[in-house]
Amino acid sequence: MSTPPEGLSREGTPANMADVAARAGVSIATVSRALRDLPGVGQETRDRIRAIADELSYVVSPEASRLARRETGRVAVVVPRADVWFYSAMLAGLEARLRQAGLDVLVYQVDGVTARSTFFRDLPSRRKVDAVVLVAMPVLAEEEKRLDLMGAEVVVAGGRLRDCPHVRVDDHEVARLAVGHLLDLGHRRIALVRTSDTEGTRWSADVERVRGFRDTLAAAGCPLPEEYVVTRPFGVRAGADGVDALLDLPERPTAVFAYSDELAVAALQRLRERGVDAPREMSVVGVDGHPLAELFDLTTVDQGVAAQATSTAELVVALLRGDRPERSTVLPSRLVVRGTTAAPLDG
Amino acid sequence: MSTPPEGLSREGTPANMADVAARAGVSIATVSRALRDLPGVGQETRDRIRAIADELSYVVSPEASRLARRETGRVAVVVPRADVWFYSAMLAGLEARLRQAGLDVLVYQVDGVTARSTFFRDLPSRRKVDAVVLVAMPVLAEEEKRLDLMGAEVVVAGGRLRDCPHVRVDDHEVARLAVGHLLDLGHRRIALVRTSDTEGTRWSADVERVRGFRDTLAAAGCPLPEEYVVTRPFGVRAGADGVDALLDLPERPTAVFAYSDELAVAALQRLRERGVDAPREMSVVGVDGHPLAELFDLTTVDQGVAAQATSTAELVVALLRGDRPERSTVLPSRLVVRGTTAAPLDG
Repeated sequence: MSTPPEGLSREGTPANMADVAARAGVSIATVSRALRDLPGVGQETRDRIRAIADELSYVVSPEASRLARRETGRVAVVVPRADVWFYSAMLAGLEARLRQAGLDVLVYQVDGVTARSTFFRDLPSRRKVDAVVLVAMPVLAEEEKRLDLMGAEVVVAGGRLRDCPHVRVDDHEVARLAVGHLLDLGHRRIALVRTSDTEGTRWSADVERVRGFRDTLAAAGCPLPEEYVVTRPFGVRAGADGVDALLDLPERPTAVFAYSDELAVAALQRLRERGVDAPREMSVVGVDGHPLAELFDLTTVDQGVAAQATSTAELVVALLRGDRPERSTVLPSRLVVRGTTAAPLDG
Repeated sequence: MSTPPEGLSREGTPANMADVAARAGVSIATVSRALRDLPGVGQETRDRIRAIADELSYVVSPEASRLARRETGRVAVVVPRADVWFYSAMLAGLEARLRQAGLDVLVYQVDGVTARSTFFRDLPSRRKVDAVVLVAMPVLAEEEKRLDLMGAEVVVAGGRLRDCPHVRVDDHEVARLAVGHLLDLGHRRIALVRTSDTEGTRWSADVERVRGFRDTLAAAGCPLPEEYVVTRPFGVRAGADGVDALLDLPERPTAVFAYSDELAVAALQRLRERGVDAPREMSVVGVDGHPLAELFDLTTVDQGVAAQATSTAELVVALLRGDRPERSTVLPSRLVVRGTTAAPLDG
């Protein structure tokens, strides 16, 4: 048996979950779900289980809870790709904190509809892990139904998904910080460059960031021509291609809100190649807090990826310990003003 | 039990490894090591085991081999950090190929002397995995001794370590390609920018790249002032700081060989900030094949990270299957000439 997550004791309790299950005539898993307020147990059954637990003076015991879950000492971290900075930084932070707690990390790359549907079909039957962390991964409605069958805690990092416990930033606020900064500088023609949805799904962070962009401009009475919202396929050139489209418009924007620092750095490079001075002729603001942002003196909204990862790992540890942690943690994001934003020439 | 790696059959064989072990009066693990030519078994014992195996017409059976190793269906990938491109790209390629073979991937970040010594102390007793892939991770002599105790295949990616099976590029050749290109263009004052060793250890790739740099210059009769070899601590600014040191020399080099594309991109950015034109006043060549290299029109030596990862995964699968694959695979690296190298002004 592997090292138990920190805080777990191996001592027994006067009544265990099996006693409650036997008395209620249900499985241990059902007792576990009922007492931890997880979905999948009817209200009547839930009430009956609670009454029996009270009668037996049973409180959720970490050890019984671990046994009921057939503990493996492992956590799955699911990312679309391990070689893209945001996901790799999340994975790095999760692994560091989970290993401190004696948990090993399995990594799965699940990108695109086919890989996702295979993953959600197969994982429930595997019972390989105690918890699954979905990192900023869009999930179709029919796939969501499989989450309950996982036989593991499902935790979401970098967004939200149904009623799963999650850690994220407020992406509406991320967009408001970036666009508000540009408005404060006097910009009125502000464009957005983002990468495309994964095959028909939309991740919550993306939806909220677009909404934040539109809401902030609308609140300032700023027009938004639809050609100022540019979407390109994911890749290293997306930011450069997005800038090309904007520079070719009859009325160019004076500022660009890029969806990630990688997009922003690619945008800056293309501006330079086309002889457009940033920030004098075009301001650029990114999102992330990527190490490159500092190097390229990029104004950005730092979404504290390391803090999100650590907080998510702590949520996992608390859930596996049998605690009842906050199921929604929204961490702050922070505008970092550097050299790629300035007042517009015609401002 | 998890899905077996591809090619494994569950059929029995006339005599199994346990029969050989019983007859030889040794453990199954010893038979396994002896017949697979792994270290840790004396020559006399090895000969005796072979004779008994021949007598019983026993050949290494994948299935018996799996049982002897108490198969877990998991492979550990050990990297210094998961959030640095080279390691994350290796991890991405390994995970994709290993999962095709039905193997799950555990990731461990092991950076610095303390983390490394804890890791090498604890892993052998855990028996959590069938194989361990060390990705470009330096190991001290006393840690090397623990590798035999792992109870798992130990495979090395991106370099070499003792007699472990490995996949790598020829790093002497990597340096020769980069420096040879600069010499061909007419450069004579060529500098090297690298990041520092991890606390007293040196990774084989680093040693060989420095040697390739020196050998290529020496063969061309090119002088190498020691101040042209610049080492900075690992980080996003290393390339920028390295360039600063070179620009402040009384006799500047006309070209820089940077140890990675990330260093090279940081070097280009600092050159731009200091008003030094690349490639007219300073040529820059990197190593890796990072997506940023294409974006920044960077001349680089592409070391085919994805191919190294896939080949390493295939080596792991073959070893676990009980095959006897090539224990040393050296993949080609490739000079990609782009816009950051040109003839020197004074050439």
